[in-house]
Amino acid sequence: MGLIVQKFGGTSVGDAQKIHRAARRAIRARLAGVRVVMVVSAMGDTTDRLVALAQDISSNPPKRELDMLLTTGEQVSIALMAMAIHAAGHGAISLTATQLGLVTDSVHTQARIRRIERARLERELESGAIVIVAGFQGIDAAGELTTLGRGASDTTAAALAAVLGASVCEIYTDVDGVYTADPRLVPDAHKIDRISYDEMLELAAAGAGVMHARAIEFGMKFNVPIHVRSSMTDGGGTMIVPEDEGIEAVAVRGVSLRRDLAAIGLDGVPNIPGFAAKVFEALAERRVFVDDIMQNMYAQGAKANIGFVVQASDAEIAREVADRLAREHGFEGVEFRAPISKVSAVGVGMRSHTGVASTMFKALTEAGVNIHGISTSEIVISCLVTAEEGPRALAAVHGAFGLSDDPKRLEG
Amino acid sequence: MGLIVQKFGGTSVGDAQKIHRAARRAIRARLAGVRVVMVVSAMGDTTDRLVALAQDISSNPPKRELDMLLTTGEQVSIALMAMAIHAAGHGAISLTATQLGLVTDSVHTQARIRRIERARLERELESGAIVIVAGFQGIDAAGELTTLGRGASDTTAAALAAVLGASVCEIYTDVDGVYTADPRLVPDAHKIDRISYDEMLELAAAGAGVMHARAIEFGMKFNVPIHVRSSMTDGGGTMIVPEDEGIEAVAVRGVSLRRDLAAIGLDGVPNIPGFAAKVFEALAERRVFVDDIMQNMYAQGAKANIGFVVQASDAEIAREVADRLAREHGFEGVEFRAPISKVSAVGVGMRSHTGVASTMFKALTEAGVNIHGISTSEIVISCLVTAEEGPRALAAVHGAFGLSDDPKRLEG
Repeated sequence: MGLIVQKFGGTSVGDAQKIHRAARRAIRARLAGVRVVMVVSAMGDTTDRLVALAQDISSNPPKRELDMLLTTGEQVSIALMAMAIHAAGHGAISLTATQLGLVTDSVHTQARIRRIERARLERELESGAIVIVAGFQGIDAAGELTTLGRGASDTTAAALAAVLGASVCEIYTDVDGVYTADPRLVPDAHKIDRISYDEMLELAAAGAGVMHARAIEFGMKFNVPIHVRSSMTDGGGTMIVPEDEGIEAVAVRGVSLRRDLAAIGLDGVPNIPGFAAKVFEALAERRVFVDDIMQNMYAQGAKANIGFVVQASDAEIAREVADRLAREHGFEGVEFRAPISKVSAVGVGMRSHTGVASTMFKALTEAGVNIHGISTSEIVISCLVTAEEGPRALAAVHGAFGLSDDPKRLEG
Repeated sequence: MGLIVQKFGGTSVGDAQKIHRAARRAIRARLAGVRVVMVVSAMGDTTDRLVALAQDISSNPPKRELDMLLTTGEQVSIALMAMAIHAAGHGAISLTATQLGLVTDSVHTQARIRRIERARLERELESGAIVIVAGFQGIDAAGELTTLGRGASDTTAAALAAVLGASVCEIYTDVDGVYTADPRLVPDAHKIDRISYDEMLELAAAGAGVMHARAIEFGMKFNVPIHVRSSMTDGGGTMIVPEDEGIEAVAVRGVSLRRDLAAIGLDGVPNIPGFAAKVFEALAERRVFVDDIMQNMYAQGAKANIGFVVQASDAEIAREVADRLAREHGFEGVEFRAPISKVSAVGVGMRSHTGVASTMFKALTEAGVNIHGISTSEIVISCLVTAEEGPRALAAVHGAFGLSDDPKRLEG
């Protein structure tokens, strides 16, 4: 008998009616003859409310206790989901990470999955029940409760799908799939039917908030197709699959916009081996997460320029670090630009298509958008633009790669 | 080094300010040189809200899933309490029943404690931390989450105090102790300084809602003094202690009123051995909890009268059972009276004092209250009265036993 994993996010279990709807969906799949493991998130804004409760008590709560607090949100959801399935006359059992044996490392609030025990899961599935697993949570080897990071119920689902050899990991959410761009910013964006793991990873990293990146990595590593779908409709959604599985060959699959970034430029830094490492070590020591690095290659002499992008919330700390290094090493200057946005085009087709970068730069130029920095990787081209010009830049790039054309109309 | 257990009820951890206050109290005790184990309930009306959530989903949720749901309330409280203690600069760690190893039987929603592991508790206490235990919850031998019944955080506290050999189990609540009667009904009721376990058990059973009966049983069995105190003030509270430990010798320690009862009388039932057993087996089969049984002894012939008292919520089922038995066995009649109240006087001094019953009946007669039934046990006398006359009956009995006199004034 086949097995599927169905994950329901916070908005898909936000009230009793939605919980019943999710329950019916799982029962329908079960009655169609597959075993079903559900993964559920905390209801609606529960996690935010719990975080607010903690902040009422302490500005800097111990992370172990934060995990003790936050794991309750998913525990409430799994209990209610099991009740809803029972009320509809089907067998179901909820399992916490402790009961299941979903073992992580001990990095509270950002734990990584180490191991998933199969014995309890398989025993419950064997009985015919729908098994409902609390997303987002784990236990470490000592039995301490951990969490996997915000949005990580996706990761719980993908990891379970991998361990159990599921035929598909269905991610139910409040949108009906992955779009070529955020439809709130680009009204003529359209839904992508199939996308590769690599493209989805890069789109997620570039700001498309649909899925947790680690979940996609699990899918890719264990070859589990991930199906992003609406919990409200029966539409087709988006399949995230290996690159070679029937994906249409286009240069750019989608575009996305990250906001709330800050760009810092170090002008005239010593062009000596290891100096860049010194800069990024200093940032890492202050726990600044560096999003992108842009080192200009034109410097022939003794001095170089290093640019990097950080989250706006880290901007002040990054600036402090840069100013200190400037004093210690005599830079020519520190440039600082915040907030700044980044528009990215993503597509595995870039590997074979030429002229993708120039198409992007031309589109931005024609839209009158100034480019403040460029970074590229194998399947991504990103440009920094001002926060105000971000949405316009996104629409321009979306159009330039033909993503605004209706694929359904083209098919006809 | 000594050890105390401090239990904080829902109203004592109802918001951030109250949590901080409870945290300070525990830290103060710790700094005074004793080890401290805290037991906390769910915040304010959390448990009621969780029950309402469940009822939104299902009119008859599986009890296993109800326990899965309800145990989250205490988990939230222990996490926040640990944060509050950390914020005040002291070490603390929260423990769920699973982490602690508080093992119960498998009777969901009404589980009984079987065993408490000491290893984790002692390791954490050894480190100097204040240990915060989730009240109300347990796990069964298979690791399933259970709960001990509403109000049973008291029982968690008393059981921990017993296992750890605590010098005292402090129960912090929103009243400043146990009173000679409910002060909302009898304004001249006064606080009892010391009361025996037996008296407290009977008062609790007779409607004094201060403490969970099983907690008192634990205290009695393991000889742990229980100290009921206000979480808002530093007043002396009430000590619940063995009978011989300096308790003032009075006939009646306190009086209390139970409302929402129903009385059922079976007139002219067959006076044959085993017939009463048949009646109460039939009630037990329908899960009716019988509060009191009053079998009249005057019947010399072939017929007897049996009266019993049940909770008003069970009244209709009990009446059905009585009517069925009447049809099957040809009773003379079934009398039914609901709602009815029961006023009880409790005191170990009854064992040696004479005339207690007659004092009570005289007080009720003088107050013009009609007595609809009487039951007595070693240290309790109870009279059934109409619901309307309940408060007046309570005040009359309270006064008749001298409980309305101010003991502080008498001392002078």
